[in-house]
Amino acid sequence: MVLFNLGPQDVKVRIKALGICGSDVHHFKTMRCANFIVKKPMVIGHECAGFIEEIGSEVKSLQVGDRVALEPGISCGRCSLCKNGSYNLCPEMKFFGSPPTNGSLAHKVIKFLASRTGIFAILSCIQEKILFINQVVHPANLCFKLPDNVSLEEGAMCEPLSVGVHACCRANVGPETNILIMGSGPIGLVTLLAARAFGAPRIVIADVDVQRLSIAKNLGADETIQVSTDIKDVAAEVIKIQNAMGSGIDVSFDCVGFDKTMSTALNATRSGGKVCLIGLAKSEMTISLTPAAAREVDVIGIFRYRNTWPLCLDFLKTGKINVKPLITHRFGFSQKEVEDAFETSAQGGSAIKVMFNL
Amino acid sequence: MVLFNLGPQDVKVRIKALGICGSDVHHFKTMRCANFIVKKPMVIGHECAGFIEEIGSEVKSLQVGDRVALEPGISCGRCSLCKNGSYNLCPEMKFFGSPPTNGSLAHKVIKFLASRTGIFAILSCIQEKILFINQVVHPANLCFKLPDNVSLEEGAMCEPLSVGVHACCRANVGPETNILIMGSGPIGLVTLLAARAFGAPRIVIADVDVQRLSIAKNLGADETIQVSTDIKDVAAEVIKIQNAMGSGIDVSFDCVGFDKTMSTALNATRSGGKVCLIGLAKSEMTISLTPAAAREVDVIGIFRYRNTWPLCLDFLKTGKINVKPLITHRFGFSQKEVEDAFETSAQGGSAIKVMFNL
Amino acid sequence: MVLFNLGPQDVKVRIKALGICGSDVHHFKTMRCANFIVKKPMVIGHECAGFIEEIGSEVKSLQVGDRVALEPGISCGRCSLCKNGSYNLCPEMKFFGSPPTNGSLAHKVIKFLASRTGIFAILSCIQEKILFINQVVHPANLCFKLPDNVSLEEGAMCEPLSVGVHACCRANVGPETNILIMGSGPIGLVTLLAARAFGAPRIVIADVDVQRLSIAKNLGADETIQVSTDIKDVAAEVIKIQNAMGSGIDVSFDCVGFDKTMSTALNATRSGGKVCLIGLAKSEMTISLTPAAAREVDVIGIFRYRNTWPLCLDFLKTGKINVKPLITHRFGFSQKEVEDAFETSAQGGSAIKVMFNL
Amino acid sequence: MVLFNLGPQDVKVRIKALGICGSDVHHFKTMRCANFIVKKPMVIGHECAGFIEEIGSEVKSLQVGDRVALEPGISCGRCSLCKNGSYNLCPEMKFFGSPPTNGSLAHKVIKFLASRTGIFAILSCIQEKILFINQVVHPANLCFKLPDNVSLEEGAMCEPLSVGVHACCRANVGPETNILIMGSGPIGLVTLLAARAFGAPRIVIADVDVQRLSIAKNLGADETIQVSTDIKDVAAEVIKIQNAMGSGIDVSFDCVGFDKTMSTALNATRSGGKVCLIGLAKSEMTISLTPAAAREVDVIGIFRYRNTWPLCLDFLKTGKINVKPLITHRFGFSQKEVEDAFETSAQGGSAIKVMFNL
Repeated sequence: MVLFNLGPQDVKVRIKALGICGSDVHHFKTMRCANFIVKKPMVIGHECAGFIEEIGSEVKSLQVGDRVALEPGISCGRCSLCKNGSYNLCPEMKFFGSPPTNGSLAHKVIKFLASRTGIFAILSCIQEKILFINQVVHPANLCFKLPDNVSLEEGAMCEPLSVGVHACCRANVGPETNILIMGSGPIGLVTLLAARAFGAPRIVIADVDVQRLSIAKNLGADETIQVSTDIKDVAAEVIKIQNAMGSGIDVSFDCVGFDKTMSTALNATRSGGKVCLIGLAKSEMTISLTPAAAREVDVIGIFRYRNTWPLCLDFLKTGKINVKPLITHRFGFSQKEVEDAFETSAQGGSAIKVMFNL
Repeated sequence: MVLFNLGPQDVKVRIKALGICGSDVHHFKTMRCANFIVKKPMVIGHECAGFIEEIGSEVKSLQVGDRVALEPGISCGRCSLCKNGSYNLCPEMKFFGSPPTNGSLAHKVIKFLASRTGIFAILSCIQEKILFINQVVHPANLCFKLPDNVSLEEGAMCEPLSVGVHACCRANVGPETNILIMGSGPIGLVTLLAARAFGAPRIVIADVDVQRLSIAKNLGADETIQVSTDIKDVAAEVIKIQNAMGSGIDVSFDCVGFDKTMSTALNATRSGGKVCLIGLAKSEMTISLTPAAAREVDVIGIFRYRNTWPLCLDFLKTGKINVKPLITHRFGFSQKEVEDAFETSAQGGSAIKVMFNL
Repeated sequence: MVLFNLGPQDVKVRIKALGICGSDVHHFKTMRCANFIVKKPMVIGHECAGFIEEIGSEVKSLQVGDRVALEPGISCGRCSLCKNGSYNLCPEMKFFGSPPTNGSLAHKVIKFLASRTGIFAILSCIQEKILFINQVVHPANLCFKLPDNVSLEEGAMCEPLSVGVHACCRANVGPETNILIMGSGPIGLVTLLAARAFGAPRIVIADVDVQRLSIAKNLGADETIQVSTDIKDVAAEVIKIQNAMGSGIDVSFDCVGFDKTMSTALNATRSGGKVCLIGLAKSEMTISLTPAAAREVDVIGIFRYRNTWPLCLDFLKTGKINVKPLITHRFGFSQKEVEDAFETSAQGGSAIKVMFNL
Repeated sequence: MVLFNLGPQDVKVRIKALGICGSDVHHFKTMRCANFIVKKPMVIGHECAGFIEEIGSEVKSLQVGDRVALEPGISCGRCSLCKNGSYNLCPEMKFFGSPPTNGSLAHKVIKFLASRTGIFAILSCIQEKILFINQVVHPANLCFKLPDNVSLEEGAMCEPLSVGVHACCRANVGPETNILIMGSGPIGLVTLLAARAFGAPRIVIADVDVQRLSIAKNLGADETIQVSTDIKDVAAEVIKIQNAMGSGIDVSFDCVGFDKTMSTALNATRSGGKVCLIGLAKSEMTISLTPAAAREVDVIGIFRYRNTWPLCLDFLKTGKINVKPLITHRFGFSQKEVEDAFETSAQGGSAIKVMFNL
């Protein structure tokens, strides 16, 4: 059975490490995530690294045996957004999906990976059916060779880390940028690591959960602030946060996306600063946007990432970023372990990143 | 009575033309505007032009008799925002205000203009007391000589026009930028004129009022769309607006600041585009910010303007912008006329800009 | 004989209008241009427009019969420069070239157009052999539909015009940018037109040739300055140019590339301004770079263009740019006419753009 | 004798540490530096730190006894460059100068420091006359409080360090920017330290002097390359440098300013990269600018610095930059020591920064 064709600029990769993302959990447990509804067997998982098993006829940058991290999305390369360098916004992006021809496969054989679809993952998620699929065809230019001192697991971490790195790029974080991070879940933590690597001199992080804050502290946050879930506390907490910073907050990252986190970020940021909205918890928000806008505090939107893998790998190689403390749980790939892995990831708590080793 | 000292870098200006702004109406009628509460006699008015009557000892750029337009705010020049070029955000800006020493003046003598306060206006607004004040001391570098073919009235229009010009600068409007404008009141109209002068190829403007839209059409809008005040209509109106544009909307200006106008702007703008929030109607908004942020639509805040007078005067001189159609009503300066002027401005309707000629 | 394969994202275009560029003349007359040496039969010409004759299976943006202008270079889409939006700098750009398999063609049948080479032109130039080739396969996303009121000839002019447009983009020309242009040959003139369309308020243009300057004046230059070829005149001419401008020169375009033109541009530009080097007359220059650098005058390099066709077509459609006066000579395609066309172009003088109509 | 008036926004500082700059040596030994000719007694020295002795009536940010580093230049605050944030380019900058009223002083009393001149230094340099002057009046907003763990000597180092920091800001150096530095004298070394603090992942530095290179290596350069003074070696050395980098050079800093260093930088930098010209050794250069410009390598000019002191102090406080190894020689302030200090600085060799402790 041929699952994919290897194009001249493609490589075939055997996936060896794969992290579970919150969206994977949603798909696995509810068959949907936001507006995306799973209607057919679908491969999930998009944080991965592996070995090159085969290279296309024109590929020169990679060799069989190379260890690589994979950037998951394949953009069209032809639209104006792609041509302008904003390929992450490409309307024809193939980030994951369900090949339409899968239906002819037996119901137990879940599936897939047609070449050029951008799907490269390892798990199917219809009912209890799970199939081990660990090969993927992917464009060579989206496969980035791992430095010798970067493990496959760390390579897989480039995907979530890329969210933080892209946010720092969009917000132009540098050695003069004092940072507030709202939320110290996985995205808050990778944003913390990225901001530090971009040179942010002072980082304050706020969360409702002291355990999460203590992790953030260990990862290098200068100050941690426990906040409530009560919107009425915003004004008082803004003062607390600003005092903890000790000088103007140049950029705030809202890694949650609630009315309260966004209101706090908008109020806390200095005139002329920026608020990056990364977390997407709520679609509609009630926020005091106008007073912030009237201080020229801009709200910067973030969608995934672009051109971040080389930088992530450099951060890992040089030790400017250490993602190992984020990998809290590891699983193999029996059906039992897969279910446990998703359950662990869903529970949160001490679990930050759950990783499969294949 | 000495009202002001002429510093070496100051000039004394006799004001001859003065426009009424919405905030002036608020001050005049309710003794407050947003969080600013008028507690003492205060001079209002900040859209003005006049003649130089005296120059400070070190002023070289201006001469007695020159006709000038005045940029009203005086920033400190010492804070980090000023030194970085964002002087409009200076926390010590003296834009208008009430000199603390006024209280000793007789209750009928309302007032005035102490040197270096940034107050330069002509009307006091406590109760029925009105005083004609038409001289102001102002820093020479904030007084811009009018080209021969630009009238004093047009000079006074540089202030509201500057709001549109600054918004276009912040949003980086150019010949590739398709524009949506929500709201066709005075600010919507100056933004329309500015966007056109910056080269915007296609401008769609939306409002609830057909009369306002018809003015916008006459001023050069490519398409006008009548919208409702019902938030449930957003989705349908976004489609209508996008169809009227015919291609992606790169920048939207919300010149109103309601939940509905902002939601429309956020939804209508293309991925990677920008929404500028200029209108400040509502402090707290309920908006679908997240879906826009997840398409990297940024929200750009606007506060007044910086470095806009030279460009405004060039636009007026070359005819790239014609503000004359915006000046719909003119008044002299008897008490009756002053009251009529404010009443006319407050009514709205066909009144766009009400101007005093002194 | 199959000359090309139509890929799913390609179109086949019948070329109907083609302009002669200075580099074409070089190739035609000397078999080389700068470091590029013609070793095999090669198709030249890269300023063109035509009709769509066939579309690939996945092309949705174009239809058979559409009139299109062609952007000539095909970038790889995979390197970091392409992915960052600087595709014009792609090291694997296929802009023109000689397909290696041509040698098997009969010596009289010169040529060709293999799919995906980026070659799309119409003339071969080895010895006296000339073949009429007017079909080219090109990626659909590099073929831009002409507005109804834009002729094929004007469509072909998008290529040289793109050089000026790209230079204005790189130099961030807008309504506040006073412009000096050194050289009023074809590139100087398209830069003049582009700068005006970007809103440049005042443009001074300098050249040794009064006839060229008079063309520039007719095309809208505010002031023209005749300069010498003597490097000793730089200081005096800078003063003359600055006086003609009347205020600071924000951006200078050197459309020639001699020691003297560059020195003039560097000296004339205001502190904090920019000099764009477009003309490439001399590889090595002796220039007073340091005094300009010590006034933070930056030197901006220009290589072709990127993402300029849509804007060029909008400028032509709206009349913001009129390229018709630049098309001074037209030829058909008999061998005699082709030779005359190149001769006319090589002569310069009153010839600005020589155009083939096929 | 009143030497200065303390304005309401001024402070009086007793200078305690002062570094010698190359321009000071020029002034001291030849009575000129570039176009600046010393015609009257003049105070030199502009790298300094000291204690606040008195504060103006409106100064709130500083107190008597505070230890401060001084930014030497006072800009006008009124011109368009100042208002746009490019105050370092202010045409009325008072950076150092000779108070016109000095002539009435006895010929042995040499002099200094009228209020508002920006002159704050300690040495006069006409003939053999030297006067100890250690007080200066300076605007409070140009005096930056030293963190507790930053010494006065380190505070004085903010001035040369600012050159490197400003260059990194202008070149937008960050964690993705591979750096070449031409020249490992004092400016090359501060640029090295600054680039590292901005996150530059890989820095190659080239010089003719192995001793200088060894210092650079100790300060953290990844690779050092010895180069010749022969212009014919450029091509070979570019290859050597590029090999040492191992990937594209994004930004080159020419900290020398010779034909050869600039040619090397232009050739070595990747397409789309930047060359910053900091060193000003030669006014006129013969360089192959065109081939670099045709790869869109921009040349960025640098003039002093703006808004760099807070960042420099943060770098020193956090240890991201350690300037102590640059301070190689220390002197007191007897006439003999002053002469020895200038001699030592002029010799170069192992002397990097010569510092007075007062």
